[in-house]
Amino acid sequence: MSTSIKNTILVGFGTVGQGFYHYFLENNTQNKLTSVVIKDKFKERNPSNLPFTTDSKNSITNKNVATVIELITDQKEAYNIVKEALKNGKQVISANKKMIAYHFDELLELEQKNGGKFLYEAAVAGSIPILKLINEHYAFDEITQIRGVINGTSNYILTQIFEQGIDYQQALKQAQQSGFAEADPTDDVGGFDALYKLILLSAHAFGKFIHPEKVLNFGIENILAKDIEFAKNNQLKIKLVAQAVKQNNKLTLSVLPTFVDVNDDLFHINNEYNAIEVLSNNIGTQFFKGKGAGKFPTGHVVYTDYQSIDKTSYSYKHTLSGKRIKYDTDTFTWVYSNNITSLDKYIEDVVIINRSEGYAKIKLSHLIKNKQFIKENKISFIVIPDNILNLFSINFTRNSELLEYAYK
Amino acid sequence: MSTSIKNTILVGFGTVGQGFYHYFLENNTQNKLTSVVIKDKFKERNPSNLPFTTDSKNSITNKNVATVIELITDQKEAYNIVKEALKNGKQVISANKKMIAYHFDELLELEQKNGGKFLYEAAVAGSIPILKLINEHYAFDEITQIRGVINGTSNYILTQIFEQGIDYQQALKQAQQSGFAEADPTDDVGGFDALYKLILLSAHAFGKFIHPEKVLNFGIENILAKDIEFAKNNQLKIKLVAQAVKQNNKLTLSVLPTFVDVNDDLFHINNEYNAIEVLSNNIGTQFFKGKGAGKFPTGHVVYTDYQSIDKTSYSYKHTLSGKRIKYDTDTFTWVYSNNITSLDKYIEDVVIINRSEGYAKIKLSHLIKNKQFIKENKISFIVIPDNILNLFSINFTRNSELLEYAYK
Repeated sequence: MSTSIKNTILVGFGTVGQGFYHYFLENNTQNKLTSVVIKDKFKERNPSNLPFTTDSKNSITNKNVATVIELITDQKEAYNIVKEALKNGKQVISANKKMIAYHFDELLELEQKNGGKFLYEAAVAGSIPILKLINEHYAFDEITQIRGVINGTSNYILTQIFEQGIDYQQALKQAQQSGFAEADPTDDVGGFDALYKLILLSAHAFGKFIHPEKVLNFGIENILAKDIEFAKNNQLKIKLVAQAVKQNNKLTLSVLPTFVDVNDDLFHINNEYNAIEVLSNNIGTQFFKGKGAGKFPTGHVVYTDYQSIDKTSYSYKHTLSGKRIKYDTDTFTWVYSNNITSLDKYIEDVVIINRSEGYAKIKLSHLIKNKQFIKENKISFIVIPDNILNLFSINFTRNSELLEYAYK
Repeated sequence: MSTSIKNTILVGFGTVGQGFYHYFLENNTQNKLTSVVIKDKFKERNPSNLPFTTDSKNSITNKNVATVIELITDQKEAYNIVKEALKNGKQVISANKKMIAYHFDELLELEQKNGGKFLYEAAVAGSIPILKLINEHYAFDEITQIRGVINGTSNYILTQIFEQGIDYQQALKQAQQSGFAEADPTDDVGGFDALYKLILLSAHAFGKFIHPEKVLNFGIENILAKDIEFAKNNQLKIKLVAQAVKQNNKLTLSVLPTFVDVNDDLFHINNEYNAIEVLSNNIGTQFFKGKGAGKFPTGHVVYTDYQSIDKTSYSYKHTLSGKRIKYDTDTFTWVYSNNITSLDKYIEDVVIINRSEGYAKIKLSHLIKNKQFIKENKISFIVIPDNILNLFSINFTRNSELLEYAYK
């Protein structure tokens, strides 16, 4: 496989596939693109003279092929392709966050057992090389927290809501018209896309793979006009924050609409941009911002993986410490809600209600258990992070129980 | 030299040297630290049992030594050490921005001629791995602009001025007391430290090495209370901005106090933090923020260079395109000044004065020519970047000449 000319197959020729091909054409001097696997052989393609084929199976198992680049949207098909390629000891590059998040352990095992390689930088935060940074730049430090705005569609919609004073439905429609949201936006606005990315970030940063279904993810789809008004009145914004926090070997993950204040770097991330804040013991706080999607930004990252795959592999250096880490859903979080009465039955701890509006202290595990019900009933709530709890006159006594509250 | 055990010598055991040693002790399992070169052999050291020596020359030329890590402040001595080590084909790691910026071409030639390696990530922006990012992440893209806040001391002082309402002298004193500024702060507050870093950024991003003395650098030392007041009244901040802009194969560099508005990511960079914004053709805008200095952040970056030096070298991929690029000082820039009358004779273009306060459009080359005089006479001015020119009612007609102005 390590001849100087590498036969490469590209699976998928959509936006990112075409982006990758742009760089391949411009920079590649020795490798050969032997097939471009597509689904619809009658669709017009530009350029039209590539080695298009609909036969993925044969292309992937071909022993003359060194590298497989998987850039399709269908996750089942992507899983089969990546699995088959790794079984055959190929170098594999993928951008399919959902597929990788669901099959992480299995794919890694296949990579290691069969001597292949598996890189997927483009699966997380588009143009920000965050997996490479975690893998190399943080190799000798201990990451304790990752927070990010990692779904461009949700962030675009939230930006329009806050800047133009329109409501969620109007903003979604605008985003769909300008190509920032899909016809079925659930994956983005439901917080699923951000969840899959968070699963991968957590695996790399903490060496701990958590199955997506064990993690709490609510998106922005149920945010009410009243919530926006509340945020604006308090000089806050609402962002869809994906977060992984490690404390005393306990790891908590969540994707939730969250208030951020002007001192938070995420406050200033607008439109389709992504950003990730990393806290670590020795380096301190670092912050990375860049475009989360797009033909050229994402295509560039796929091409960078492609060019470096001979000498790069993910070391999963943190996997050892990951064994000591326990996934923890017993954490409490404060939320603001305009559906406080509907939330009532999911709350273990004390909650005080002012008509339908109020604050509640909730255990994550309780929300996870009732995830489906909360989604179906469109119950809206926004996380109040600890660092801005003091903006609200919520008073604690005894063992962090809420006794009384009053909004300033 | 490529035996599995690498003999390593550390030159300098100050803050960063001790930071490096922390990681070496914690993570290194096979290499050997054969000498730690120090200047003062009577000073107490912790730990005290390292192979300390004052004989740098013998340690460096020793043929059993593979890697030399140079972390001293004396730039002449650093130059001799790095030169000698590269002549002997060693792997060399340095954090000495000034020394590298002054001898860039020569050191690169020595590296390439003698088969050694030369990495210096810690020389630019402390914990932000910006050279690695430019070298790898931007390998297939064309960078068009780099802007940054890359001197932590100046940024710390400016933050105190803006947040506490104190003047420059008070803020400098505070910074000195809290260890953020040296007794002689010229290198930082005079814009020299940022200049050296900019020279290295430019060499990597554009493949163009510009000698430091050809570049315009003014620091924050002459900023007046009136300038601060003006900024505050207009919801602006002043930052020391290092900037490299490429347009039509013309490259302009500068380090100048600059107004930034709330929409600029640099506006939100406070205290000792560094940040760099990179614009490129395909990836778009990316932004990186992190600590600019410190024992552990900087030591970590040195150790990361050390661990990756076998398989990493700077490719200077952009050097080829750099040959087409012309260094350009004919650019005009708008400035605000409370010394407008003193600036008068250095201005080619029209300037309109309201007592001592006003705006001027100045050619960079004119300021470079009179750099010494302006510094000696403590003439203060702040750049108004193009993107906020519209905040000021400055009207242009005919060939961008100023005809009239009025401040809103």
